[in-house]
Amino acid sequence: MLKKIEAIIREDKVNDVKDALYEIGIMGLNMFEVRGHGRQGGIKLVGRAGTYQINMLPKIQINIVLSDHNLEAAIEAILDSAHTGEPGDGLIFVYPVDEAIRVRTRERGQDAM
Amino acid sequence: MLKKIEAIIREDKVNDVKDALYEIGIMGLNMFEVRGHGRQGGIKLVGRAGTYQINMLPKIQINIVLSDHNLEAAIEAILDSAHTGEPGDGLIFVYPVDEAIRVRTRERGQDAM
Amino acid sequence: MLKKIEAIIREDKVNDVKDALYEIGIMGLNMFEVRGHGRQGGIKLVGRAGTYQINMLPKIQINIVLSDHNLEAAIEAILDSAHTGEPGDGLIFVYPVDEAIRVRTRERGQDAM
Ligand SMILES: Nc1ncnc2c1ncn2[C@@H]1O[C@H](COP(=O)(O)OP(=O)(O)OP(=O)(O)O)[C@@H](O)[C@H]1O
Ligand SMILES: Nc1ncnc2c1ncn2[C@@H]1O[C@H](COP(=O)(O)OP(=O)(O)OP(=O)(O)O)[C@@H](O)[C@H]1O
Ligand SMILES: Nc1ncnc2c1ncn2[C@@H]1O[C@H](COP(=O)(O)OP(=O)(O)OP(=O)(O)O)[C@@H](O)[C@H]1O
Ligand SMILES: [Mg+2]
Ligand SMILES: [Mg+2]
Ligand SMILES: [Mg+2]
Repeated sequence: MLKKIEAIIREDKVNDVKDALYEIGIMGLNMFEVRGHGRQGGIKLVGRAGTYQINMLPKIQINIVLSDHNLEAAIEAILDSAHTGEPGDGLIFVYPVDEAIRVRTRERGQDAM
Repeated sequence: MLKKIEAIIREDKVNDVKDALYEIGIMGLNMFEVRGHGRQGGIKLVGRAGTYQINMLPKIQINIVLSDHNLEAAIEAILDSAHTGEPGDGLIFVYPVDEAIRVRTRERGQDAM
Repeated sequence: MLKKIEAIIREDKVNDVKDALYEIGIMGLNMFEVRGHGRQGGIKLVGRAGTYQINMLPKIQINIVLSDHNLEAAIEAILDSAHTGEPGDGLIFVYPVDEAIRVRTRERGQDAM
């Protein structure tokens, strides 16, 4: 069975996360920038002119479609490599996937991964 | 049970939608820009030099992972705050989510939200 | 039943893919740029100063929510129009969708598509 991981992480952790995934044999992934916030609603900056709420922080979302046999190992690799212990370390979401198809070969399912 | 909302809305409605979600207690979300069109295939601009089809309009996609207990309230908040009544108001899609994990604490499921 | 297609394709195939989808009556879609790689881990560039691994190649991700009655026709249209036969032609992923709602009319399900 195929699953999709969406990992929303700090920009400066992207290379560590990629390296951690390669080490367990996960090569296929894509990423893009998102802006948002979690439960804290962003961060407050206090300056002489007043208090500013910066509530749309940039993060990188990494998407990985993979076999469910590799799912827990991939989650562990991301949790270890993306972690600082401070608020804003990010979130991992997992979704069901019905099908995957490689355009070059028309292979489907696990064979396409 | 966790669900994911993808709401593709007008750029100038983003703040209204965020405010409407905060009012019902929804803090966690992320967003990014997409280009596309719905059934009309974009808009036509008629000028002296001819007719142009502008068929990739920019919109903002807001993603929200949340408990299914909050799903209908969040959909109502988006429908109310993103609405103008003109074509191009956008679409809301809902997806199943298998798992959510907070990187800082390793909490899973509803606890991570 | 509704499904979502995510097609990650070459940038220079976007217009061909859009045309192929319109020809079978698929108008609604959105797209954005992603960076990533598949099993090859990107491409190697060999120059006088050494070997460079360019491992985050840009692609376009096209998202289409559609009725499962149109799913196989849409996949075939993408496979035909995005194909070159060289590595890097891209991947198609299919996901389950719980609900779709048009903001302007509040129509739900297949009616919203
Ligand atoms: N419920 C959510 N749905 C979708 N995206 C979210 C959600 N919550 C947060 N995000 C995205 O994930 C990013 C990381 O969030 P963040 O790490 O602050 O999560 P958190 O739950 O507040 O955890 P922490 O308490 O460790 O800060 C946010 O900047 C936002 O882009
Ligand atoms: N079937 C679809 N799948 C994925 N994205 C879509 C789909 N249809 C539209 N979109 C995206 O949603 C945006 C908003 O579409 P739009 O509001 O024009 O929808 P519509 O169905 O044409 O409704 P209306 O008749 O009110 O214009 C589009 O610009 C596009 O980015
Ligand atoms: N497992 C994956 N999960 C998510 N995205 C992926 C995955 N594999 C590849 N991608 C994305 O899809 C794009 C296209 O990948 P690519 O066509 O090289 O796939 P491939 O499986 O290596 O096939 P080929 O052997 O034909 O090159 C990549 O640049 C990356 O953005
Ligand atoms: Mg936070
Ligand atoms: Mg429209
Ligand atoms: Mg490849």
